[in-house]
Amino acid sequence: MKDKMTIILFSGELDKAIAAFILATTAAATNMDVSIFFTFWGLNILKKSKFAITKSQGLLQRMFNFMSTSKLPITRLNMFGLGPWMMKKLMKKSKMASLDELMKLAKMLNVKYIACTTSCGILGLSKENLIDEVDEFAGASTYLGEAMTSKINLFI
Amino acid sequence: MKDKMTIILFSGELDKAIAAFILATTAAATNMDVSIFFTFWGLNILKKSKFAITKSQGLLQRMFNFMSTSKLPITRLNMFGLGPWMMKKLMKKSKMASLDELMKLAKMLNVKYIACTTSCGILGLSKENLIDEVDEFAGASTYLGEAMTSKINLFI
Amino acid sequence: MKDKMTIILFSGELDKAIAAFILATTAAATNMDVSIFFTFWGLNILKKSKFAITKSQGLLQRMFNFMSTSKLPITRLNMFGLGPWMMKKLMKKSKMASLDELMKLAKMLNVKYIACTTSCGILGLSKENLIDEVDEFAGASTYLGEAMTSKINLFI
Repeated sequence: MKDKMTIILFSGELDKAIAAFILATTAAATNMDVSIFFTFWGLNILKKSKFAITKSQGLLQRMFNFMSTSKLPITRLNMFGLGPWMMKKLMKKSKMASLDELMKLAKMLNVKYIACTTSCGILGLSKENLIDEVDEFAGASTYLGEAMTSKINLFI
Repeated sequence: MKDKMTIILFSGELDKAIAAFILATTAAATNMDVSIFFTFWGLNILKKSKFAITKSQGLLQRMFNFMSTSKLPITRLNMFGLGPWMMKKLMKKSKMASLDELMKLAKMLNVKYIACTTSCGILGLSKENLIDEVDEFAGASTYLGEAMTSKINLFI
Repeated sequence: MKDKMTIILFSGELDKAIAAFILATTAAATNMDVSIFFTFWGLNILKKSKFAITKSQGLLQRMFNFMSTSKLPITRLNMFGLGPWMMKKLMKKSKMASLDELMKLAKMLNVKYIACTTSCGILGLSKENLIDEVDEFAGASTYLGEAMTSKINLFI
């Protein structure tokens, strides 16, 4: 049986997403079973490029989804004022993989994407709003089941 | 012997507190022993409704406690500008439990609340400033003892 | 064989750094093996006092390092508006060790400092820019190796 790692990706910032996917792909490359549980802001990373707006959503849900479309992956303008533009520029310069490339690699290595059903419910998100690479929609009990048998569990 | 989970709740934001309590109550409902260690900003969640100000506190401590009373659980105005109002509204709409309800449930399920003595010391908080549901005041070594024998340890 | 703990210190804020070092020193004092893996903003804590700027860095890297020198450990002006000045003042008043003192203690207790090579590459940081106490430069696979055999793994 393979060793396991789980990551709860709660944050929607670019820098934290990159950290999560570097850990996930490195672990999967060394033959570990890796699950990422996307919840709250982390769901933005799974949204399709076009605005995740559908008729079944209420006004607040539409506003929220409009403001957080995945085409605008903005890291918080943190204490150093380093914008996402600067960060991407620096990553490219040091020949590091972009988030898109890391996510492609993750799928090749069978990293499992689990979208949190509770958060999806709050935001009015359904299967059609998220990228096809999502493996499963599940809640906290599914996460706990995975985490119980994992050697490494991180909340990012 | 029961399986255990520990959570360090360092953050004082509404969204992270909700994530912590969803995990805690789900785990406790499946018969796990759950401890939440409240430290730094996380202590705001444990403050009584009225301002946690007492005569023994210095000016800075009073200012701090005045600014962070638990009657104003403000989530950071994060990258999407979604205020706590919007968030609570969306949670209600999708029939999700509020933080207050989750905390009541947590107590019914015997989730243990540990308040960090070091942080309490910095902020001039004593037993009378915090809600009665706090089970224990303890430091990092108590946390480490719990975490050593737990299957899941998260820092939120 | 000793019990182990690993901490990924991703954040560069004063309050989170203090939390990490309180946990690290308490664990090391009770005879655990502790490794802190400094990545992204966490690297700021390891920078030498003078600006970590060298000729080999490009303009963006210089700007970044100029803005985040370790002489200005600014915690994010979080929801309560509590600045780092207030925080340090309160810590001193309650006779708590400062971050500098905690870091000295950590070294006396053999807490291992690992600087993330990927982040160093992005920021153009080399050995000479960081304090001498850094034990090792390594990537995610080294972290995972440590974490696999640790009882407590936290992402801060």
